[in-house]
Amino acid sequence: MELYYLAAGATADGSVRFDADESRHIARVMRHRPGEFVRAVDGQGMEYRVRLSEVTDSAVSGRVASAGPGQGEPRVRVTLAQGILKGDQLTEVVEAATELGAVEVVPFRSARTVGGYGPRRAARLRRVALEAMKCSRRSVLPEVRDAVDLDGLAARCGDFGLALVAWEDENEQVLSRALVGGPASVLVVVGPEGGLDRSEVELLREAGARSFSLGPRPLRARLAGAVALASLMYVLGEVVPPGQVLAGKEV
Amino acid sequence: MELYYLAAGATADGSVRFDADESRHIARVMRHRPGEFVRAVDGQGMEYRVRLSEVTDSAVSGRVASAGPGQGEPRVRVTLAQGILKGDQLTEVVEAATELGAVEVVPFRSARTVGGYGPRRAARLRRVALEAMKCSRRSVLPEVRDAVDLDGLAARCGDFGLALVAWEDENEQVLSRALVGGPASVLVVVGPEGGLDRSEVELLREAGARSFSLGPRPLRARLAGAVALASLMYVLGEVVPPGQVLAGKEV
Repeated sequence: MELYYLAAGATADGSVRFDADESRHIARVMRHRPGEFVRAVDGQGMEYRVRLSEVTDSAVSGRVASAGPGQGEPRVRVTLAQGILKGDQLTEVVEAATELGAVEVVPFRSARTVGGYGPRRAARLRRVALEAMKCSRRSVLPEVRDAVDLDGLAARCGDFGLALVAWEDENEQVLSRALVGGPASVLVVVGPEGGLDRSEVELLREAGARSFSLGPRPLRARLAGAVALASLMYVLGEVVPPGQVLAGKEV
Repeated sequence: MELYYLAAGATADGSVRFDADESRHIARVMRHRPGEFVRAVDGQGMEYRVRLSEVTDSAVSGRVASAGPGQGEPRVRVTLAQGILKGDQLTEVVEAATELGAVEVVPFRSARTVGGYGPRRAARLRRVALEAMKCSRRSVLPEVRDAVDLDGLAARCGDFGLALVAWEDENEQVLSRALVGGPASVLVVVGPEGGLDRSEVELLREAGARSFSLGPRPLRARLAGAVALASLMYVLGEVVPPGQVLAGKEV
């Protein structure tokens, strides 16, 4: 069943109004009619069953029939900081991060960065995250941030229960050894094509991050984030069969 | 340092000859000269240090200075069977499977398959695997098979220490529970876009495969293989820092 995005959430009296893009999709593509029920998420973790009242090509509204926390969201809040990549590769990264349960993607510039990152690219990646959220039936829309430099990234390391940086020259730490203690939030830093240099890893370490290895086989940068997140979610116990996910209030 | 592919391996007396593609790359792109040393792998698990003797644009040959098993290969032989996907998506899957350490990719047709798979596509994917092998510094070239149908895939399930099938409707098994006993070889089956239907999963189960869940958040088919392999390699203990890989004979 299709999942729609309710950017504004629901009002206190339970009325909802979809934005122009979603309205067009609901009315013209999916051809819903007043009186029908649809499922919607607010991108903040809530899922709604909505009874449609008004359906036109430009404005769809309705009333909440039931509501509850969306299912399938990881308990641990995971942020991926990804070195900026050329071309379409950040699209792949944002899609994968969203499907794998991240709540935030932070693109960053570092010494070996190739490629720019401006407002248009950020806007496009936000649309990518929105589509991926719906496809993966999540209720949380990952925040795609404006780009930061390495100092800006280092400044954020302290905001997390655990900050990790994937480094190809790391010879001691594997992911599991860094995960003792059950952090409520984890930052995973993955470098650009060409990687992070030693001084950059040192800077992040001084800010509290721990380096870890993604293994003996070098990975392309555009795959490394997905591999890091997949392994992290697995180790954190977030990969459980859908039927074993603690159900929220029935929606 | 660049890694070259030595399709024919080395002769008993230690002489080597690169094929036309690699010769052109060594001579024209990398501009190596006679007397220089290069590293090469045979795609079968051996890595060589080669002293170049003849270098022309069409023929490069040399002698083995030292040889040994390549490093970083997983101990467990992992095969990915991937439902055929449209467009360029199988390229991504073959690249990821190679970087993640698989030794074989088996494309298969099933009820929900969209897209064809002929000799030209297979040939292209074999070139993709070759490039990915070199980028990920592996010494084993994963075999990209011709397509099989579901009966053909089922017939192969018994060839492995463990056969697994990722299934979105699986509500019990997670990967780790299926991995008891330390299999020497594992087959991982990932369906096409749209997934496998219940009768297909049953057919594979009857052939000895065990279904498992990739978690509560649906994944695009082209990402599912990478996620399954990343998690599998992690659980198998194959993701160790490069410095901790059991070194082969020094090469």
